[in-house]
Amino acid sequence: MNKKHNFSAGPCILPQEVFEKSAQAVLDFNGIGLSILEISHRSKDFVPVMDEARAIVKRLLNLNDDYEVLYLGGGASLQFLMVPFNLMKQENGKAAYLDTGTWASNAIKEAKRLGTVHVVGSSKAENYSFIPKDYKVGSEYDYFHCTSNNTIYGTQMKTFPDVDTLMVCDMSSDIFSRQLDFSKFDVIYAGAQKNMGPAGVTMVVVKKEILGKTGRDIPSYLDYSLHIAKESMFNTPPVFPVYASLLTLQHLENNGGIAEAEKRNEAKAKLLYDEIDSNPMFETFCKKEDRSLMNVPFKITDESKKEEFDNAWKAAGINGLNGHRSLGGYRASLYNALPIESVQVLVDVMKSIK
Amino acid sequence: MNKKHNFSAGPCILPQEVFEKSAQAVLDFNGIGLSILEISHRSKDFVPVMDEARAIVKRLLNLNDDYEVLYLGGGASLQFLMVPFNLMKQENGKAAYLDTGTWASNAIKEAKRLGTVHVVGSSKAENYSFIPKDYKVGSEYDYFHCTSNNTIYGTQMKTFPDVDTLMVCDMSSDIFSRQLDFSKFDVIYAGAQKNMGPAGVTMVVVKKEILGKTGRDIPSYLDYSLHIAKESMFNTPPVFPVYASLLTLQHLENNGGIAEAEKRNEAKAKLLYDEIDSNPMFETFCKKEDRSLMNVPFKITDESKKEEFDNAWKAAGINGLNGHRSLGGYRASLYNALPIESVQVLVDVMKSIK
Repeated sequence: MNKKHNFSAGPCILPQEVFEKSAQAVLDFNGIGLSILEISHRSKDFVPVMDEARAIVKRLLNLNDDYEVLYLGGGASLQFLMVPFNLMKQENGKAAYLDTGTWASNAIKEAKRLGTVHVVGSSKAENYSFIPKDYKVGSEYDYFHCTSNNTIYGTQMKTFPDVDTLMVCDMSSDIFSRQLDFSKFDVIYAGAQKNMGPAGVTMVVVKKEILGKTGRDIPSYLDYSLHIAKESMFNTPPVFPVYASLLTLQHLENNGGIAEAEKRNEAKAKLLYDEIDSNPMFETFCKKEDRSLMNVPFKITDESKKEEFDNAWKAAGINGLNGHRSLGGYRASLYNALPIESVQVLVDVMKSIK
Repeated sequence: MNKKHNFSAGPCILPQEVFEKSAQAVLDFNGIGLSILEISHRSKDFVPVMDEARAIVKRLLNLNDDYEVLYLGGGASLQFLMVPFNLMKQENGKAAYLDTGTWASNAIKEAKRLGTVHVVGSSKAENYSFIPKDYKVGSEYDYFHCTSNNTIYGTQMKTFPDVDTLMVCDMSSDIFSRQLDFSKFDVIYAGAQKNMGPAGVTMVVVKKEILGKTGRDIPSYLDYSLHIAKESMFNTPPVFPVYASLLTLQHLENNGGIAEAEKRNEAKAKLLYDEIDSNPMFETFCKKEDRSLMNVPFKITDESKKEEFDNAWKAAGINGLNGHRSLGGYRASLYNALPIESVQVLVDVMKSIK
């Protein structure tokens, strides 16, 4: 197998060990003579997978038992709806949202169906090229919602505000990539398909005490409390995506946890940004201070060299470098599982373009 | 690998070929040097998978282009909510439901949140041991909802009523197992994890012309029209479960389609029911005329023989025969991929209990 340098924005590269172990489990899970695809989610073979997949998240994020971890279907897009269903009051519900890009904007759209949304900061007018910072969120809001990393625009929140209400964060594209005080948050959610696992499952971390206070009738599947009561087995969970996520998180834990991942991610990002900053052929789209360690969208300054660059990175075995359709150019995603050697290959190609 | 006789009620046995091909794709998908878990859902490698996964369903169910096929997350339980969101009118919405078991009852619970539900028939008072048949559904209802097969109680609708409204059916546990006039239905949905694929994706078939008529504001993820417009790629789909489902459906198509599967399923069910009917040691829970070809819950009539029977079927390499917790006893699920040889092994064990 000729492995490529995979810079895909998601679904994206995972540790090779995850591919090998999960492929084996599809053939024969833990030597039980059955595929992981054909066993009951309530079997003695799978229940420990779900239990450990929930427990390892709390260990990695350093969260205590005030928090519960869920694995749900429907993607982060369904969380855009579940968050207001669970946290926005039925009567005069009001939430504060930070608008830092497409996904934040989609979250706002769903919340507006259930109550009043105040956008307390937005960089939309400048094509989301920075993270708004001068805003206050008072106790008049049911909650504050932000997006920690913006895959399309390549910006990332380096700090999080102190707010006088519940703190909700969509961490889909940078969860497990850097150390944060995760206990600052009341709800964290993340589509697995970046640093956490394959597509098809979304992790939700909820501080239990915040639930049940909206006076709202919540449909069963949208109700965090119900999923918590059923230990994330309200209905058949996405068995294989949960298992592959567990393998990914075990790999992270066995390799120094988030602390070491963060160091590796900083080194990879520095290597690439240093090249972009020193090479007049390339430039980024966003403010330096808000640059993401995970996603690096960039453009070529001399369009006449585009074909040469495209041919060169493809010849070097690089995959997934095309930019998002809404921004154009290129995008290098540097998720946890991407080795620095792949970044060096890209940097070498960039240096070769004169 | 010592393969077992897998009677699990779901997730359940799939064709061995599906395990082998999908395990290979986890290591290297189509020889592209990347795992199917690490490629973009919008890549030229995955888009054809989604396109074909949608197309093959229409071929197998013999449906024309009036219908669209979607692959969604959240399970059939989320469909319990999506159906009324998409079909029940905002003003004076009213739907007719047939109550044939736990899943039907759960569907009713969600629909009641959005409008009036009339249960036009129910066998609840007799522990769901039969399918109600004497009911009429007139045009005063926005739609009629039924459950084609009841995994827990082992009953199955052999015929479907002629109704004067839209026809919606949860076919989670018998889709692709028998020939029906599928064009009789306006919405068919099915969690994949029985005859269709692994857990983590739900197939929805919708007749397009019925949508957009409720006057209701539908949240994005719950809106069939939006998923149709985005060709089931509104957000990141469950990539691996969709691919494994496609492999399962290709296996079905290559082995005579639904017509041949139905013959095999009838032969398997006859073999088991004949043994139950002729062996005084065993009996079923439900009316003969409504017996499911997919799920056969049964009990042992002499409890003193239970340990002997349990030891015997376990020794024979049988898996997943324990009954559902709400009914007790045993349950043999005879999904498409279960070979008749496995049923013969079970029948031989049953014959050995004196």
